Parts: sequence; C-alpha cells; structure tokens
Amino acid sequence: MPPITGVTLRVARARYKEWDRCDLTFAELCEGTSLAGVFTQSACASSEVELGREQVKSGKARALIVNAGNSNAFTGYRGREAVEQIMAQVAQGIGCEPSEVLVSSTGVIGVPLPKDRAEEGVTNALAAEPCGWKDAANAIATTDTFAKGACASAMIGDTKVHLAGIIKGSGMIAPDMATMLGYIFTDANVAPGFLQDLLSSANGDSFSCITVDGDTSTSDTVLAFATGKAGNGRIEDWDSPGADAFAAALNDICRELAQLVVRDGEGASKFITIRVSGAASDSSAHRVAMTIANSPLVKTAIAGEDANWGRVVMAVGKAGEPADRDKLSIAFGGVWAARDGLPVEDYDEAPVAEHLKGQEVELAVDLGLGNGRATVWTCDLTHGYISINADYRS
Amino acid sequence: MPPITGVTLRVARARYKEWDRCDLTFAELCEGTSLAGVFTQSACASSEVELGREQVKSGKARALIVNAGNSNAFTGYRGREAVEQIMAQVAQGIGCEPSEVLVSSTGVIGVPLPKDRAEEGVTNALAAEPCGWKDAANAIATTDTFAKGACASAMIGDTKVHLAGIIKGSGMIAPDMATMLGYIFTDANVAPGFLQDLLSSANGDSFSCITVDGDTSTSDTVLAFATGKAGNGRIEDWDSPGADAFAAALNDICRELAQLVVRDGEGASKFITIRVSGAASDSSAHRVAMTIANSPLVKTAIAGEDANWGRVVMAVGKAGEPADRDKLSIAFGGVWAARDGLPVEDYDEAPVAEHLKGQEVELAVDLGLGNGRATVWTCDLTHGYISINADYRS
Repeated sequence: MPPITGVTLRVARARYKEWDRCDLTFAELCEGTSLAGVFTQSACASSEVELGREQVKSGKARALIVNAGNSNAFTGYRGREAVEQIMAQVAQGIGCEPSEVLVSSTGVIGVPLPKDRAEEGVTNALAAEPCGWKDAANAIATTDTFAKGACASAMIGDTKVHLAGIIKGSGMIAPDMATMLGYIFTDANVAPGFLQDLLSSANGDSFSCITVDGDTSTSDTVLAFATGKAGNGRIEDWDSPGADAFAAALNDICRELAQLVVRDGEGASKFITIRVSGAASDSSAHRVAMTIANSPLVKTAIAGEDANWGRVVMAVGKAGEPADRDKLSIAFGGVWAARDGLPVEDYDEAPVAEHLKGQEVELAVDLGLGNGRATVWTCDLTHGYISINADYRS
Repeated sequence: MPPITGVTLRVARARYKEWDRCDLTFAELCEGTSLAGVFTQSACASSEVELGREQVKSGKARALIVNAGNSNAFTGYRGREAVEQIMAQVAQGIGCEPSEVLVSSTGVIGVPLPKDRAEEGVTNALAAEPCGWKDAANAIATTDTFAKGACASAMIGDTKVHLAGIIKGSGMIAPDMATMLGYIFTDANVAPGFLQDLLSSANGDSFSCITVDGDTSTSDTVLAFATGKAGNGRIEDWDSPGADAFAAALNDICRELAQLVVRDGEGASKFITIRVSGAASDSSAHRVAMTIANSPLVKTAIAGEDANWGRVVMAVGKAGEPADRDKLSIAFGGVWAARDGLPVEDYDEAPVAEHLKGQEVELAVDLGLGNGRATVWTCDLTHGYISINADYRS
C-alpha cells in the first residue's frame, strides 16, 4: 500500500490493557484536509461517535487518534472527559483546533477510558517515528486475526490520485449505515460536502451490506480524509472532472475493506455472498438478504457444508418482506435447487456439495416478484464463534 | 397429566424417516368440539398452516393429525395434495367432514410428504389402541430431547374443568404471533370465537415471548380444542361465569408449554428470563427484550457465565426503539451492575458471578423512559447449538 501525501502515521503504547503491543494510533493530516464520516445508528452510541457526528459537519480534520482495547462506550461524563482531554492534547501538540482532532475507541464497553494512560499514549505518539499502514492496521485491531487494509487509485485528468484504507472488526458486526472502525485516506482534492455524499453512497453498497453476527456496535465509525496533495483540480460535485473515477475508486476500496471484515468474522471458515433478485424493491431485497445472512440456521448449515435450502426458505419467510412461496427460487454456486416454489426435479446435489466444500460460497435467491436486487456478504457460524465469545470479555 | 374427556389419543408408525419410532399422532375429538388456533406469520408458510387458518374460521374440529420428520413446507401442489389426502382418509375413517380434520407436519423443509407413507400411517393410527399424553408428546417431537406437556384446571361454578397440552420444538424458535407445534385440549364448554380470543391473548404473553435462535418456522401452529364434556355452562364471553378462571388456566398452560420449549432450546445450558421496564410502551419493551434475547453476543456471554452487561447495552442500542444511554440500568440476578448510564461504583461482581453459574439466569433492564414493560424467555448459545445444526438436515 502506497503512502498518501499529507498523511503521517504513528503508533504508540498507551497500555489500555495488559498487553505488549501498540494500542494507540495517530494519523496527522495536513492543513486543508477534507473530512467525511458515517457512524453507527445505535441508540447507545459512544461519546466518540457523538462528537464525531458534530465534527464531520465542519468537513475539516487535522488528526485522528484510535484507541484499542477500550471502547469508552457507556461511560457517561467520565468517558466524554477522556475524549476531550485527548482532543486538547493533540491540538496543542500539532497546533490546530481541538475540534479538528477525531477520536475513535474500540474494545470493552462500560469502562471509562483511563485518562492517565491516554495522556501517556498521546505523548508517546507525538514523539514517535512515522510508520506504515501495516503497523497502523495492527494497532487499531482487537479480536482481529489479521491486519486489514486496501488501496485504490483513479485518474483525474492527468493526475493520478491514491486511496488507502485500514479497518478493524470481526465480531459485533451488523452495520446500520456504518460499521466498525474504518479509515480511508486519499491525496485527492475533494470538497468535504461531496466527499460525504460519496462516502455515504459507497457505505450503502459496502459496510451496510455485511454482517457477522447481527449485533451492532456502539462505536461503528468510518471516516474518509482527503489531503488534496495530489494536485488535481478540486472535485466539488458530479460535474467536476474525475468525479466518476474517484467515486468508483472509493466504492472499490470501501467494498474491499468491508469484505475483509467478513473474511475475518469471528470463527468464520467460509465467506458467503448472498444475491437476492426479483424483490419488490432494492431495499426489500437488501432486507431479505440480510435476514438470510443473519439466520443462525442458514449459517450453521453452510458451516456444515449442507445445501440446506429449506432453511433459506425459512429465512425468506421470516423477513417480513413481500414474498410468494410459490415463486421462490434458490441456487447454491449457480445450481438451482428450487424453482418457482418447488424442489427442482432433476436436482443434482453433487456439484453443490463440491461448491460448499470451498471457502467461497455463493447463494442466490430469486423472489420472482419484481426487479429489486441486492448483494450482501457474511460468514458461517461455527464453534469458533462460540469459543471466542463465551470466553472473551469484549 | 389427566385424560381430557372427549379426546382419544393414538400414535402410529408412518416411517417418514428411517427411524424406529411412532411419527404420526392422531387425536380424535368428540362432536361439538370448539377449535381455535394461532399460526406462524411466515410469508413461506406450509400448506398445513394455510389450510389450518381457513379451518379455524369454522371453529369446529373432530380430529388432529401430526406428522413428524417432514414439515411438508415448500412442496407446492404436491404437498397440498398429501394434506388433503390425509384429511379425506381420516374423515372417512371416523365419519366427519374433511374440513374438520386438522393436520400439522414438522421436520425437513422441501420434501413433499410421501402420500403412500401417510396413508399407511393413518391406517395404522385409525386401528391403534388409545394411548396417553406422553406417547403423543414423544410422537410429535423431532430434535426435542424430552417430551413436553403441561396441565391446568379451573373451577367454573361448581364444575372443575381440565386443560392438557403438548408441544414440540427446540430450534427454529422465534414465534411471530404463534410458534412451533403446540396442542391444548380441554373438557370445558367454550364457544369457538371466545376460545380464539383467549388463545390469541394467551399467545401474546407466552409463545410470542420466547426465542431460541431468532429463526421463525414455516410451520408454527398452536391449536386449542374444547370438547365441552366437563358439563359447565357454556363460556361465551367475558360475562360468562368462570370466564376469568378459564382464561387464567389457559394462560398458565400456554406459558408453561412455551417455557418448556426454551428449556429444551438446541444446545441450551441455561434458561434466561429477561425483564425490560421503563420503556416507552409495552410493545417497545417487548422489542427491546427480544433484541437482547436474540443477540448472539449476549447469549454467548451467558453461556460463558460472564456478566458482560456491555453486550446488553449494545443490544439495547441496536433495537431501534426509544432508549437513552444515560438513563439505562442493567441488573443480573437482582444486582444492579449499571445505573443511569454509568457502571455502579461499588458494584460487587461476586454474587452476580455466583448467579450466572446457575441454570436459571435473570436479566433486568430498565430504560428509565416510561412505564412500558415486558418479559421474555430465551436460552444461551453454546457449542451444542452449532453441533446440532451444522450436522442435522432439518
């Protein structure tokens, strides 16, 4: 992954938990950086999310701090004070307004972020040597089993602009508009309002289309930072040269980052793509697809490599969306097991069984009603998920 | 459990699967029996459910047939023909109208009920010796690990009336108005319309308040049959003598049957009662409670005997109902871990840890907003659930 001009990464130890690793990430951003963000819809969102929603309105950012090991959610005024302390300390350190310092935290819920450790961590980070994307991706992780990053580029006139993103998350994944902690950096020159439009749109086809366990985090945040250092003409709206190319690159990186989270879903052994077509509308298709993706019986069937399309029928039936049992068709790996409400007469399960043995599973559902369609991504539900979550205090 | 006058139970072998057990249950009902029923809201309901909804409108029943091992759901016209064949054969056997024969089926989805086996099973059942509740409860079961029945009684004037019920179900349990296969028999004389009112009401506080895995069956059915043989004055409405006593007895038996299903939840090691208070309305409290009950992270935490109330905050936040993080309080086993949006300062985890080691776990959530309240029951999520559902084709 290439460096992004205008972005300087550093990691440090704040010792939020008793572990021997960097758990505070600091991204310094050049003056003039545009900011956009999408956040969890949780009614119990963290102070970081509440503040972030306000900060995004200004469209400006100079720094990002990410704390790992403590989500600082459900910690009342003490949690908020800790965030404001970090914002003030970083602002003083680099010479900007506290409101230009974005903060995210991830980890245990209900324990106020310790101010003394945060202060020490920020001091260490301000003095640290710059690092690369992999160190930053590792430092924002918690239960993740691998560092997650993706990059893209686009030509804007004669100027090549670059995008790089990192993300963390593998459990408590059921984004509602936004998800997890994800950060996308670009050297493109993009106006904040339009960057927000593009990020919100990309989110609808990426982070909002994944689920691991149907549980929505209190801290979900995706932020996009555009430093403008590439030298392209400023992208103000869809009429600006290169807007389409930049939007396509942003969509690509968002989808790639979102899929990485599902691939690292807690206990996951298979990556599942669910395509729903023939729905009454696109949003109806999305809700049906997410209901299938969240069904523990569908997810355990796939873990067991069982083409149990009866459980898919069940999930379609409970989705609360328009569906007609006698028009429903279901396929695994491109082979139709049921068509128009009936098992396929000469259904050959052999290629389907072979498909399910792989790590990439394709499930298609056609409702036979309209033109609505949606694609979502999820993982299977295995003993690994139980082991991780019956033991780990998250 | 006492016999119910006017009800004759028989079980037989139809060999719907390769197993050595009775898998067809036949309850013969005397003339004049009142009928009421509640059914799944699934958009992919089985033919049995579609026909049952029509039959309940007449309020009359003379027989019930329950097939185990094959749900006959998603089997199109062939499935419907099999049900109609059973109705005709039983009607001819006992001398009634086919429309007075109720049929339920449970088991694998997507395989048409084999007509030849159904015919053989019904023939065997018509010729079988009468049996008791336990044999019937065993014959309707599939993945259940124990036979489930409950009884109740009520005084209506000087007349004692009896109620007895059997139920099956342990996975794909997330009733939406009705759930699973449950049958309640009484010798009370109750008008069908009022019996339906009482059953629908009891359902709202029993079967609609349980969840094992959030997955809603295509075949959920609860039927109530009142033979009228006890000799009480007919209960026509709330002004009839004994209506309150009978309604209370019906509520009791429904709640007991519903809780039995959760106690036999697939892989369950703990029975969890979730009480939500302080919600904007009772229905809002119910939705919050069900969201907590369906959260895999809450269920795995309790499986791990971890008082992880941060995950309860998460579930409240994602419920989509009115909630204020800073008014939220959470208790395990009567001990408040968080009050008004903050961890309790002198929270003693020792009694809570002791409580979580038991098989009965109590979780209370107060939203601090209004007077809405609800109670639901669920079980924990364990390796057992994964083992059962990654291997078993249901």
